[in-house]
Amino acid sequence: MTPPVVSIVAKSGTGKTTLLEKLIAEMKRRGFRVGAIKHDAHSFSIDHQGKDSWRLTQAGADTMLITSPAKIAMVKQHGNSEPNLDDTVATYCQDVDIVLTEGFKRSSMPKIEVHRRERSATLLCRGEQHDPNLFAVASDEHLELDVPVFDINDTTGLCDLIVKRFLS
Amino acid sequence: MTPPVVSIVAKSGTGKTTLLEKLIAEMKRRGFRVGAIKHDAHSFSIDHQGKDSWRLTQAGADTMLITSPAKIAMVKQHGNSEPNLDDTVATYCQDVDIVLTEGFKRSSMPKIEVHRRERSATLLCRGEQHDPNLFAVASDEHLELDVPVFDINDTTGLCDLIVKRFLS
Repeated sequence: MTPPVVSIVAKSGTGKTTLLEKLIAEMKRRGFRVGAIKHDAHSFSIDHQGKDSWRLTQAGADTMLITSPAKIAMVKQHGNSEPNLDDTVATYCQDVDIVLTEGFKRSSMPKIEVHRRERSATLLCRGEQHDPNLFAVASDEHLELDVPVFDINDTTGLCDLIVKRFLS
Repeated sequence: MTPPVVSIVAKSGTGKTTLLEKLIAEMKRRGFRVGAIKHDAHSFSIDHQGKDSWRLTQAGADTMLITSPAKIAMVKQHGNSEPNLDDTVATYCQDVDIVLTEGFKRSSMPKIEVHRRERSATLLCRGEQHDPNLFAVASDEHLELDVPVFDINDTTGLCDLIVKRFLS
């Protein structure tokens, strides 16, 4: 069973990761198994220089896995064929109840947009283009919109909506 | 297609990771896609404190993925059900030609043992127990054994044998 996916989107610097952290923690408190996927447009580093896992990746391993009784970690090189979000969820997230993502703003997944007045006057999903996948906004100011607007700190309200829409 | 798996085993401190690095690099030079799996009996850390991917794992994500055009990284919590090596290979390594592992000394996968005289006088796979999965030894001293013994630096010879046995 492929789990539902909710994307947290925002203009850069609005605080997507902070909201995502809060939603993950709250969904875990409610007993759900949670997957989190972040898209990074640039190169990212994970792992520590000199560690064995790092050495195996540096040696050229296309797929490097390190496994212990508690967890498994993987670094896999795509070559030039980055899988799309659907495939990533299907491959790695079959064992969670819900997937919360960050940064897939052009995907057609249901979206929550984070808005902070000091960052921008306009919304990504209600600007030049009307994104039909937007189903809620987390904002630090009052907004009149065609979707529910929650206070940016109202993690409970946002999780209530996620559960009602996708996990009931 | 599940790829063949070769395990590099040794007593601790013999230099498994060093040999594994050399084998990965040589197999890559020969054009093979290589998976590497290290078993860590203890807890391991991957990722840097404070990075977004680290924050999502710390927030409680059961599965954390970070994906970019070049690569994907994952940290997945097992709970208390660490998958066995067969399942790990089947799940994560379908897109490589060969998997080289380190530290699965009790598995029934084909094995190369690394031996260094100064580390130990005896072999793990030819000591109290005779491991029938041993098919080669990389050693820094002459040994008379029932399997081929290569010089510990003879990466070419070891890769020739791996290709002949598992990839021809």
